[in-house]
Amino acid sequence: MGIHTATLRFQTRGNADMVDITRQVAQVVRDSGFDGGIATVFCPGSTCAVTTIEYEDGALSDLRRLFDEIADPERHYQHNLRWGDGNGHSHVRAALLGPSLTVPFMERALLLGTWQQILFVDFDNTARSRRVVVQVMGEKTGG
Amino acid sequence: MGIHTATLRFQTRGNADMVDITRQVAQVVRDSGFDGGIATVFCPGSTCAVTTIEYEDGALSDLRRLFDEIADPERHYQHNLRWGDGNGHSHVRAALLGPSLTVPFMERALLLGTWQQILFVDFDNTARSRRVVVQVMGEKTGG
Amino acid sequence: MGIHTATLRFQTRGNADMVDITRQVAQVVRDSGFDGGIATVFCPGSTCAVTTIEYEDGALSDLRRLFDEIADPERHYQHNLRWGDGNGHSHVRAALLGPSLTVPFMERALLLGTWQQILFVDFDNTARSRRVVVQVMGEKTGG
Repeated sequence: MGIHTATLRFQTRGNADMVDITRQVAQVVRDSGFDGGIATVFCPGSTCAVTTIEYEDGALSDLRRLFDEIADPERHYQHNLRWGDGNGHSHVRAALLGPSLTVPFMERALLLGTWQQILFVDFDNTARSRRVVVQVMGEKTGG
Repeated sequence: MGIHTATLRFQTRGNADMVDITRQVAQVVRDSGFDGGIATVFCPGSTCAVTTIEYEDGALSDLRRLFDEIADPERHYQHNLRWGDGNGHSHVRAALLGPSLTVPFMERALLLGTWQQILFVDFDNTARSRRVVVQVMGEKTGG
Repeated sequence: MGIHTATLRFQTRGNADMVDITRQVAQVVRDSGFDGGIATVFCPGSTCAVTTIEYEDGALSDLRRLFDEIADPERHYQHNLRWGDGNGHSHVRAALLGPSLTVPFMERALLLGTWQQILFVDFDNTARSRRVVVQVMGEKTGG
């Protein structure tokens, strides 16, 4: 058993920009050299989140609509009184969707469904440089 | 430290069918032979999700109502334009609830609350054959 | 590789009381003696949940409003017919937000963002004594 950690870095456009990071996470798993284990995907930030989805424009658009309805950016947010950066809706959305995802793998491959991708969502209201931590914990089975 | 992986298989009726998989996950933990560690419960699919709940009909019904309200199946979804399978609401619900759950265990027993069960939700709009991956990572303490 | 488990204990006021447990989780990580790994934060209960947020009154208030709107305590819940304890809204909120969070750490420090804290939410409708399980899985790198 051992641990392998990597950091993904990329740019987003903010405003619920949705990035498919499946390929990069799968690469970190291969780089680890482990045959089986778990990949923890974690966003170090309070206005971004991770989950999985079928990554196609329709489903992404539908998910954005859901968040627009339950956390409308046009409303008043108490958070905005503190910092004046107008991203109160970003914080509640990120807290709801959550910053961590755990995906098991076997034979060096993530155990995702055929139509299931790992999704990073940047809920902040501006373009950002983002980091995502991918920490792989696993073992070589020598198979 | 080591890893033990199993796949649960079962039928659902779809349409937010909610299945209590606690007993099966607990069995995988016992089968692992580990005394302590974590059980990662993961849905390989983009229209299903896992969480915990007090598994009783009232709470399940209340949870279904919440999803019916925030992601109403009767509305239009962009995803439905792509595939015509009418399950756009299923995708956004699954992305929101999330595909992974991590439950620690000690002395071979999951550290769940007394009234807390592990819940698989099939948000798809048809009956399905489903798989859930349970990956146990742990150690024998020899206690 | 090894495992270190601890239980946090604290009082809440219920009613979406939100507790910052970052410092306590970080202490468990240091107590583990591991340099790198993951900390699994798990609520053993069906009316509480964990996530991360920028822990400041405005954002907490905004998150409470979101839950008040999507799971209004003043409405009827089927769960309340069973037990008569009036916390049906607590159960659906907790199931939606989820009981588990996985945070990676390196060099004995949680890889959280600068403005990101670990949040425990007690959705129950009364003051409670609560336990949170923190299970650390990691390794010493001797660095």
